[in-house]
Amino acid sequence: MRLEKYQIAESNEQLRAKHQRQFEYIAADVKNLDDVMQKLMAFNIAIPSWALGTGGTRFGRFSGGGEPRSLEEKIEDVGLIHALNKSSNSISLHIPWDIPENAASIKALAAQHELRFDAVNSNTFQDQKDQQLSYKFGSLHHGDKGVRRHAVEHNIEVIKYGVELGSNALSVWLADGSSFPGQLNFRNAFQNTLESLQEIYDALPDNWKVWIEYKPYEPYFYSTTIGDWGQSLLLANKLGAKASTLVDLGHHLPNTNIEQIVSLLLMEGKLAGFHFNDSKYGDDDLTVGSINPYQLFLIFNELVEGMDARGMTHATDIGWMIDASHNLKDPIEDLLQSVEAIKMAYAQALLVDKEALVAAQQSNDVTKAQEILQHAYRTDVRPLVAEARLRAGGALQPLEVYRQFEVRKSLIGERGEKTVATGL
Amino acid sequence: MRLEKYQIAESNEQLRAKHQRQFEYIAADVKNLDDVMQKLMAFNIAIPSWALGTGGTRFGRFSGGGEPRSLEEKIEDVGLIHALNKSSNSISLHIPWDIPENAASIKALAAQHELRFDAVNSNTFQDQKDQQLSYKFGSLHHGDKGVRRHAVEHNIEVIKYGVELGSNALSVWLADGSSFPGQLNFRNAFQNTLESLQEIYDALPDNWKVWIEYKPYEPYFYSTTIGDWGQSLLLANKLGAKASTLVDLGHHLPNTNIEQIVSLLLMEGKLAGFHFNDSKYGDDDLTVGSINPYQLFLIFNELVEGMDARGMTHATDIGWMIDASHNLKDPIEDLLQSVEAIKMAYAQALLVDKEALVAAQQSNDVTKAQEILQHAYRTDVRPLVAEARLRAGGALQPLEVYRQFEVRKSLIGERGEKTVATGL
Amino acid sequence: MRLEKYQIAESNEQLRAKHQRQFEYIAADVKNLDDVMQKLMAFNIAIPSWALGTGGTRFGRFSGGGEPRSLEEKIEDVGLIHALNKSSNSISLHIPWDIPENAASIKALAAQHELRFDAVNSNTFQDQKDQQLSYKFGSLHHGDKGVRRHAVEHNIEVIKYGVELGSNALSVWLADGSSFPGQLNFRNAFQNTLESLQEIYDALPDNWKVWIEYKPYEPYFYSTTIGDWGQSLLLANKLGAKASTLVDLGHHLPNTNIEQIVSLLLMEGKLAGFHFNDSKYGDDDLTVGSINPYQLFLIFNELVEGMDARGMTHATDIGWMIDASHNLKDPIEDLLQSVEAIKMAYAQALLVDKEALVAAQQSNDVTKAQEILQHAYRTDVRPLVAEARLRAGGALQPLEVYRQFEVRKSLIGERGEKTVATGL
Amino acid sequence: MRLEKYQIAESNEQLRAKHQRQFEYIAADVKNLDDVMQKLMAFNIAIPSWALGTGGTRFGRFSGGGEPRSLEEKIEDVGLIHALNKSSNSISLHIPWDIPENAASIKALAAQHELRFDAVNSNTFQDQKDQQLSYKFGSLHHGDKGVRRHAVEHNIEVIKYGVELGSNALSVWLADGSSFPGQLNFRNAFQNTLESLQEIYDALPDNWKVWIEYKPYEPYFYSTTIGDWGQSLLLANKLGAKASTLVDLGHHLPNTNIEQIVSLLLMEGKLAGFHFNDSKYGDDDLTVGSINPYQLFLIFNELVEGMDARGMTHATDIGWMIDASHNLKDPIEDLLQSVEAIKMAYAQALLVDKEALVAAQQSNDVTKAQEILQHAYRTDVRPLVAEARLRAGGALQPLEVYRQFEVRKSLIGERGEKTVATGL
Repeated sequence: MRLEKYQIAESNEQLRAKHQRQFEYIAADVKNLDDVMQKLMAFNIAIPSWALGTGGTRFGRFSGGGEPRSLEEKIEDVGLIHALNKSSNSISLHIPWDIPENAASIKALAAQHELRFDAVNSNTFQDQKDQQLSYKFGSLHHGDKGVRRHAVEHNIEVIKYGVELGSNALSVWLADGSSFPGQLNFRNAFQNTLESLQEIYDALPDNWKVWIEYKPYEPYFYSTTIGDWGQSLLLANKLGAKASTLVDLGHHLPNTNIEQIVSLLLMEGKLAGFHFNDSKYGDDDLTVGSINPYQLFLIFNELVEGMDARGMTHATDIGWMIDASHNLKDPIEDLLQSVEAIKMAYAQALLVDKEALVAAQQSNDVTKAQEILQHAYRTDVRPLVAEARLRAGGALQPLEVYRQFEVRKSLIGERGEKTVATGL
Repeated sequence: MRLEKYQIAESNEQLRAKHQRQFEYIAADVKNLDDVMQKLMAFNIAIPSWALGTGGTRFGRFSGGGEPRSLEEKIEDVGLIHALNKSSNSISLHIPWDIPENAASIKALAAQHELRFDAVNSNTFQDQKDQQLSYKFGSLHHGDKGVRRHAVEHNIEVIKYGVELGSNALSVWLADGSSFPGQLNFRNAFQNTLESLQEIYDALPDNWKVWIEYKPYEPYFYSTTIGDWGQSLLLANKLGAKASTLVDLGHHLPNTNIEQIVSLLLMEGKLAGFHFNDSKYGDDDLTVGSINPYQLFLIFNELVEGMDARGMTHATDIGWMIDASHNLKDPIEDLLQSVEAIKMAYAQALLVDKEALVAAQQSNDVTKAQEILQHAYRTDVRPLVAEARLRAGGALQPLEVYRQFEVRKSLIGERGEKTVATGL
Repeated sequence: MRLEKYQIAESNEQLRAKHQRQFEYIAADVKNLDDVMQKLMAFNIAIPSWALGTGGTRFGRFSGGGEPRSLEEKIEDVGLIHALNKSSNSISLHIPWDIPENAASIKALAAQHELRFDAVNSNTFQDQKDQQLSYKFGSLHHGDKGVRRHAVEHNIEVIKYGVELGSNALSVWLADGSSFPGQLNFRNAFQNTLESLQEIYDALPDNWKVWIEYKPYEPYFYSTTIGDWGQSLLLANKLGAKASTLVDLGHHLPNTNIEQIVSLLLMEGKLAGFHFNDSKYGDDDLTVGSINPYQLFLIFNELVEGMDARGMTHATDIGWMIDASHNLKDPIEDLLQSVEAIKMAYAQALLVDKEALVAAQQSNDVTKAQEILQHAYRTDVRPLVAEARLRAGGALQPLEVYRQFEVRKSLIGERGEKTVATGL
Repeated sequence: MRLEKYQIAESNEQLRAKHQRQFEYIAADVKNLDDVMQKLMAFNIAIPSWALGTGGTRFGRFSGGGEPRSLEEKIEDVGLIHALNKSSNSISLHIPWDIPENAASIKALAAQHELRFDAVNSNTFQDQKDQQLSYKFGSLHHGDKGVRRHAVEHNIEVIKYGVELGSNALSVWLADGSSFPGQLNFRNAFQNTLESLQEIYDALPDNWKVWIEYKPYEPYFYSTTIGDWGQSLLLANKLGAKASTLVDLGHHLPNTNIEQIVSLLLMEGKLAGFHFNDSKYGDDDLTVGSINPYQLFLIFNELVEGMDARGMTHATDIGWMIDASHNLKDPIEDLLQSVEAIKMAYAQALLVDKEALVAAQQSNDVTKAQEILQHAYRTDVRPLVAEARLRAGGALQPLEVYRQFEVRKSLIGERGEKTVATGL
């Protein structure tokens, strides 16, 4: 199943007049319009390979239909998304769920869809079939040197697959932790993790990075060995310049001020990137922007300001990825909504009047500072994002096109009603 | 200090052309425009008398200047707010901080400012000077019958003041609780509270209501005797038809789904009304809409839907009030921002396509349901709210007018730099 | 695999002298010793059939060995636990995971192990193989009458199985909820749930109860239709005298004062019983007493006091059950630890000097009230619990005996290393 | 008011027989008894000068009687506590609340009570009377260089007072933060703070330390500039060897694993010490051990293990202090309970069978690890703590002696019923 360019073009044609009116209305008030449009057009968010199937909880999983049965079909799904939104030009693979048997042909297939390969992800939170040394009690932090070695070798193997595909970063989410007081010596666990990461670090190619994710709990329920940004940064600093901290929006204790963490990591030159999602209670992995869109905007406000301050540009310096669990929605629809929410937050952040904000901050004019931020946030930026997509060759209304052409129905026709995406 | 109508009119004139363009743009897409405008114009939110001064924390208080030194000056401040936004036509008094010495003249003063008196609030969380029986260990829940009696009589006295002023509701926030396990017998505390409330209930005039607020913690730190909506509703049901549950947005445990509580209280005919504010951590009492404006919208979405279902109209059936602490901002500016945020959330909720939403819900089209809600939320409703204000005789940009005419400077000139509002 | 009485007796003999010294030391200071011992001996906690296998998370599951492969083997496991601790004389079945094909022979097997059947549990949070109407969007709250009917019939069928086995309560945990704002009309969901529960209620035999569990989130992540004790109690009150509220310790928002809820439910005559576990973050389902044993004691303190006040006795009036997920520990060891923790908390609560506590409360002597509670809590009650077990025919040290006789090794020998418990 | 040694001795004599029996019973099972007793006798916890008066909340304060009216009377109160428990041999002053007018005589008075001076505390969270530059918008992080300088100078002045009194550490709790998004540039705030701290650091005498406290919120409600341990450690590492991180138990987001933080700070050689208290909701500042005593034990378990691993001894290397707010209890009683709770947790941690725990950890025997920890925790260590106090010349039952001799009554007689402690 592919969406042809003429199909998207036809759809756009029907919407163009209305869009044009809306775009002109909003654009008239945007001072830095060219800059905003250019940045919006350049901004892409990677799609993880595990996001194309229906997710679940420990209580069960309600699969939808037409889920991708292979890496090839996952690439095809990302290709569909990218064709629609022109903002999802890469895929992030999970090893061993997505081992490419023939890297060259996989790369060629991706290229056909105008996709490249983002960071590769290792997995030491599950035992694979017939695995001799179990990760039941952790991997890189394990008290047993043999298990640590096994996990280190897996990560090095993941790098190898990534090299073949043209990726240049390893993303490590380490589930390792403990569920009961006394189970773990925290210090030893940290030191073992550091030693293991050092071995992985030493195996990184020159132009590679390693991204260290943190999470306070789940799948362990008393401690996580890389539990917060402080622990991740401590490790990254001890490892060296190639190591940095990855922020998953759902991996925080209640009420955490995530935007402050983002600002400080940027300040330290240690912000690897993001796993985007939204949540109300814990690591809920909901559609980005579905629960607290203002927080997402505040994070982007820090990003825009902090990257400017460091002379960074978006496309190259930070990893952007969605990481969500599509338990109820069609995964492709969910991903389209998520990308859209991210781009809107980015657009709003680009509209913030930075000079006025700095002035308000310097004079402690708190009322004014809020007015400035909320003016940008209250602005209906959807026409700007749509215009950027239009100029890049995508659909004005990706979700509508997806439904109009009954893409899911086609996928079910091709793949069947009862497929379950590999990996999950 | 008063703002004259011609001053506001002049300011509006300067902004009118730009506003007109914006209003027409947005109004073109609003199907139920007349209804929306009418409801926005009719919607008022009460200002509590204690919100006109600078608030503080247990660590201190940084007063601003020109704070009202008397009930008369508090009325004057609310009058200023109402002159600007035409949405704050009532004041909610706190006894004993605001005992009117001459009710008739106070009523006359309020009438001059086009204000009426909203619910009256009792205070049993502090001892007054030379108070014989202390509230240190609670009031209506106290183990000592004498203390309970004292607190009951205070509440009845508050009703009496309210009757004189034309109010018709008593708002009870009961701080009573305990700070240590063992301090309290929860059951006795609840029964004592019920008995005390029953005596107050029996003293209510025919057309009066009693609103029972809940809060999980602070000023006590282990338990609160009316700690959540379930406890408040239990009391309200035992008391009778005049009793109902008041929702203060800041009075919930982390991650509480407040909008669901609102929906169920409406269903039960037991939603008294709201104390509006916003918060990130606890009962932070920040400007409404400053932290999570989407949640505010979701609450209004339940309100609009639920009131429609019960055939209710806004102005008469539910109590709307701000309850915040202005530690850093000019209180009047903070209140202007808060009222604006509430009206925007209301406007957005009025724009929700209810028929489409019901259809999406019935078909479990979760993606679509989100699109429908967020379409309304993403709409920039500021011109609608501004137009409603304009038609009602207020300012297009209340905050700008307030600053343009240097109102605070005038108030400082009249009242002094070092005043501290009575009560706080 | 069975543990013979002589084996337990031999083990006890070796420990008896030391135990005797410890028991006498502590018993000397217990005024109401006979009463305490009698209550401890009579106190039993049900074991759920799903707790005998290794649990997992959405990220995977690390099975242990020798897990029960059938209902019969689950009964055998509970029999082992009860033989050791003499406090686990019943099993709580989960339908459809544990449908008894021949109720009479299952009852006979249970009787051999001195077990009876506790509440039966329905399951509408998963679709069964080839299920026509899906629970993806809920069951009893579903907008589709057909799905509701299907779920109601399932519950009625569960009652039927329970009747055959001699159970007298239906335990309903309703996962139903929503993951996104807009997905659900809260009011309709509540009314549909009430209507469905009413049909189930009407099908209850005369001597039966229905227990309504609540939970704030998971598997849905925005709202749960029976989300807190207030919602559960509202339903129970509308249903009638046979319906009451079940408290699962892990089903609360952060910082909830659970003991207060317990006290109030007891006051209202609506406390159905407990699902015991412990947690640090959310519904972690950890070993009872492993994270916050003082909270467990405080809950039992309310229970002892509240049941006394209502003239209730433990064994008959309240449902006691463990509900945990044994991801890392041997499930039988975990259950032995959990039952022990519950009995210790109960013993400590029985030691509280109630008269002195009432006096301290009446005089607001907060320091003293804490001293009284903590004196009971600080007391090392392990010898009391062990003595009660000894007198009842159990092991002084259940866990040691379990390890000494290498029970798990035997189970693996009988059942295999790679078994996975049915259901989970 | 002083308690004479003979008074305490008389009280001990009455209790000695019972105590002796209890001590012998428990001591018989303690392998390392001499070591435990020696450590318990040597362990002292500082009392902050602001803890001697009744605390309050933003909603008010209910003073008790006989509060200290001067620094001298505060020293007298700590002297009373220390005479009773022989574990509170130092006082921690707060400047400017406790500026010693004559350091020599204050030192002499303290020496009379066998007290020394612990860390001195600066205060930049309040404006002092007639302060020219306000801390309303922060101090060390302030955008205005002048305010920063003012705050730096205050801290340097505090050091000067500390030097005079023989203290050797400056404890900095920086309230600085923001209450609204946009108010602050996080990066600038951090950099300003670092620069300010560097100036203070440079003014430290050779043998001095600076302790950097963190706190997530309050008195600001959106961000705190030193908000968590990661931010504090980042600052401490940039400052140098004299700077380290102070842990206040109440300064964490819900569900934080504090013991893990303690372990890692010890590992890094950056654990300055503690402010002890307990809490259920936020920074509740309740009596130590009153809400979650098991968590306190787990923290001490990390301390004992980690200090052993670094070859540290308690008395010299870490700062121990209580920091609580005595809103309801007599402050002296509250402090006696708090010190007792801390010593019990320490005693329990000293009883942990470390070799067995290491073995259980190495073999991932999670059940056993829990048994080992809980065996120590379940042990009733009160007789050990009492014996250590007895040997050191204190009272077997400090609280009982305090009540028996009606100390508070005497203090009220001396100081009056309506005194309010200076500072608060």
